[in-house]
Amino acid sequence: MKYYEYDTDDMIAALATPWGESALAVIRTSGDGCIEALSPCFRGKDNLSGSDGYSLHFGRIIDPGTGNTVDQVVAGVYRKPKSYTGQDMVEIFCHGSMPGITGILDALRNTGFRDAAPGEFTLRAFLNGKMDLTGAEAVNEIIRAKSPQAMGLALERLSGSVFNSINSIKALVSGILAEIELQLDYAEDEADPEAVLSTGKIETAISGLKELASTYRIGKVIQEGVRAVLTGRTNAGKSSLFNLLNRAERAIVSEYHGTTRDYIESLLVISGIPVKLYDTAGIRVSDHPVEAEGIKKSGEIIEASDIIIYLVDGCDGLTAEDRKRIDLFDRKKLIKVWNKSDISTKEIPEDYIAVSSLTGSGLDDLEKEIVSRAGAENIMLDDRAVIDSQRQKTLIDSALLSLENSLSAIRGSMPLDVVAVDIKEALDSLGEITGEITTADILDLMFSRFCVGK
Amino acid sequence: MKYYEYDTDDMIAALATPWGESALAVIRTSGDGCIEALSPCFRGKDNLSGSDGYSLHFGRIIDPGTGNTVDQVVAGVYRKPKSYTGQDMVEIFCHGSMPGITGILDALRNTGFRDAAPGEFTLRAFLNGKMDLTGAEAVNEIIRAKSPQAMGLALERLSGSVFNSINSIKALVSGILAEIELQLDYAEDEADPEAVLSTGKIETAISGLKELASTYRIGKVIQEGVRAVLTGRTNAGKSSLFNLLNRAERAIVSEYHGTTRDYIESLLVISGIPVKLYDTAGIRVSDHPVEAEGIKKSGEIIEASDIIIYLVDGCDGLTAEDRKRIDLFDRKKLIKVWNKSDISTKEIPEDYIAVSSLTGSGLDDLEKEIVSRAGAENIMLDDRAVIDSQRQKTLIDSALLSLENSLSAIRGSMPLDVVAVDIKEALDSLGEITGEITTADILDLMFSRFCVGK
Repeated sequence: MKYYEYDTDDMIAALATPWGESALAVIRTSGDGCIEALSPCFRGKDNLSGSDGYSLHFGRIIDPGTGNTVDQVVAGVYRKPKSYTGQDMVEIFCHGSMPGITGILDALRNTGFRDAAPGEFTLRAFLNGKMDLTGAEAVNEIIRAKSPQAMGLALERLSGSVFNSINSIKALVSGILAEIELQLDYAEDEADPEAVLSTGKIETAISGLKELASTYRIGKVIQEGVRAVLTGRTNAGKSSLFNLLNRAERAIVSEYHGTTRDYIESLLVISGIPVKLYDTAGIRVSDHPVEAEGIKKSGEIIEASDIIIYLVDGCDGLTAEDRKRIDLFDRKKLIKVWNKSDISTKEIPEDYIAVSSLTGSGLDDLEKEIVSRAGAENIMLDDRAVIDSQRQKTLIDSALLSLENSLSAIRGSMPLDVVAVDIKEALDSLGEITGEITTADILDLMFSRFCVGK
Repeated sequence: MKYYEYDTDDMIAALATPWGESALAVIRTSGDGCIEALSPCFRGKDNLSGSDGYSLHFGRIIDPGTGNTVDQVVAGVYRKPKSYTGQDMVEIFCHGSMPGITGILDALRNTGFRDAAPGEFTLRAFLNGKMDLTGAEAVNEIIRAKSPQAMGLALERLSGSVFNSINSIKALVSGILAEIELQLDYAEDEADPEAVLSTGKIETAISGLKELASTYRIGKVIQEGVRAVLTGRTNAGKSSLFNLLNRAERAIVSEYHGTTRDYIESLLVISGIPVKLYDTAGIRVSDHPVEAEGIKKSGEIIEASDIIIYLVDGCDGLTAEDRKRIDLFDRKKLIKVWNKSDISTKEIPEDYIAVSSLTGSGLDDLEKEIVSRAGAENIMLDDRAVIDSQRQKTLIDSALLSLENSLSAIRGSMPLDVVAVDIKEALDSLGEITGEITTADILDLMFSRFCVGK
């Protein structure tokens, strides 16, 4: 079912916390009349239906079907329009117990609530004017953020950094359109656009949009991060370097079990850039099926990586085998590392970073090189609006194209109504970014990527 | 560090929901002055420090170290003694974002909060008289419950079902002790216990404790469930039956990946009994190392199971191989199933349950037999106090022993002060159950099994 086919006022419910045994879980509900509907399921000192917004109430949830107590809970009441969705809402804080969560959701279904689709709470927030579309996208970006920097930029977007940038450009472009329309309506003769319109405003709008568009690459790297893989001959010290990087950056390490030849993945954040780092099986020819599977997997990981860190065993120096392998990799992705530099007696080639997994020397250089390869050196973010949404980037690009077309039209002395078409197109693209103009398909695509309960 | 070494009034904080990307997460705090301490980290319309208990507040968390916004949140304020722990508490409802959660916990540490140990909130609730020890144990049992029945019994215990039973028995036993002490203090001659004491009260106490003790086995089965394994020759239809049982009981199925020979585990609830059901690799001799590993694993699963469901292929009938294997299993654990009964032309032996994975016939019989083997047929639980805590069972048993000793002493005309020692011991055991008498070691053992944040 698509989002535009859903009722947007009916009562919805969803588990908003991860499914699992835990101290607490939160079940979120929203919709017209949901406080009154939940009231008979709630037994406590207070009556939910009479309670104020932003109040908490201790009590029990009773399944109206069976009359049984399902759990002891605290219920948080929000009254429209002062809630996340802009509707009446009740949040149920219950034990993180599997039968308890299931039981409360069943009780809610028995009371007329429907299971919420992913992102449906935020969809309602958008539809009820609690946030624009860039804010709604930011909510999902906050949840998916992998580093404090990504979180910070997404919070700025939630607070309106992109919305405000787009809106001030839109005001400028609207002003131009108003001028054109005035001319078209009242000028007696058809005027030459260049004579009646100053192109300066359009150029200002273009430069504002270009600046915003230019933040996309870094925004995306900060939000989504890069994949880096450690490779090299067996015993080049891949695992030691992997561990050293993880210790230095307090990484979250996941081992992919099954066989000893499987791979280890860790998530580190280097200068604000989330880096997924892979330690692969030593690449060597093998007849053993399990090991061969591991080696195949390493190949796939290398293929999918943005950065390949190739380790040379500094004690052995650069072997013929090393050279052969290095030639196989994409140079743009390749960082060459001379490991065991503390005990290596060989001369280190210039294009290698000398590292010692033992002493930790050279680690800073390697990290700087990783950040540089990610395209993220010397980033100054401050309070700038930074975008990471492909949807926003595409719409900014099309607004830019329309504005540039309008400039050409003006300079080519095209009639004013032709210029007006371009300007209107630019305004439409800008309106789509913030969701002033929107289609059901866009909402569908956007909100289906959300968590349930958000 | 042990619990009794912890300060029980200082400010603690913990993530109370599972760690993972999700719509919402909850960070829980408790301790003297925690509302005031958190207030400077919170920017919103309201001031936390002036706010009432049971109120919610929308705002932002600011890290006092950096001055940066860490997340947009809603804060729930509870004022002592009206809170879970009996202390001032703030619950922070934030985005389920990893850097956000980490950032808020860091901000709390910078504000003087310490990371809470597992169960530390409930420990404080116990120490502050918000619940007795059977209630505290019930909190953990609620979270670990695998079925609505287990959840229901644990909720009863949280509401005091065991506490009340124990307390009424304790009142009875205290009365006996008072009678003895009166005799010892005021009787001029040493009296014969049987002459001055009615044994009826002791017998009533014994029968009450026996009744409670008798619930332990079923309480444990309902709380912890049983493990059942499906086994039989290759192609006997294990996977079909496994899928059928899972569909019938809406099971949660987890596959243990790695190699094709690994096993699948599912959690079903049959008549309130949680059953962990395993589908193992076909048991056959193999030289292939991966398959051999799978078979070894099956053996371990069968070994650890409470119930072994052996499937005979009804079309082939009972083969010599089947007989050989069946002989290997513990008869008390074994349920023999004649599969493919819809198309089997053989006569079905009497001690077999005829099942068809295709039509579903015989499934009810198999489920009944599983419940019966779990020792849980014809259970009538209603509002009875049912225990599942080994700690409680051990203490009830020792109170029983003391009371029985006191009976023997009375009947053997032992002096009254000897009887008094037994009665006092019984009272001590009963006091330990509810936590009136307790030791640091018991608290340590109990609360270390809790989730963090509870």
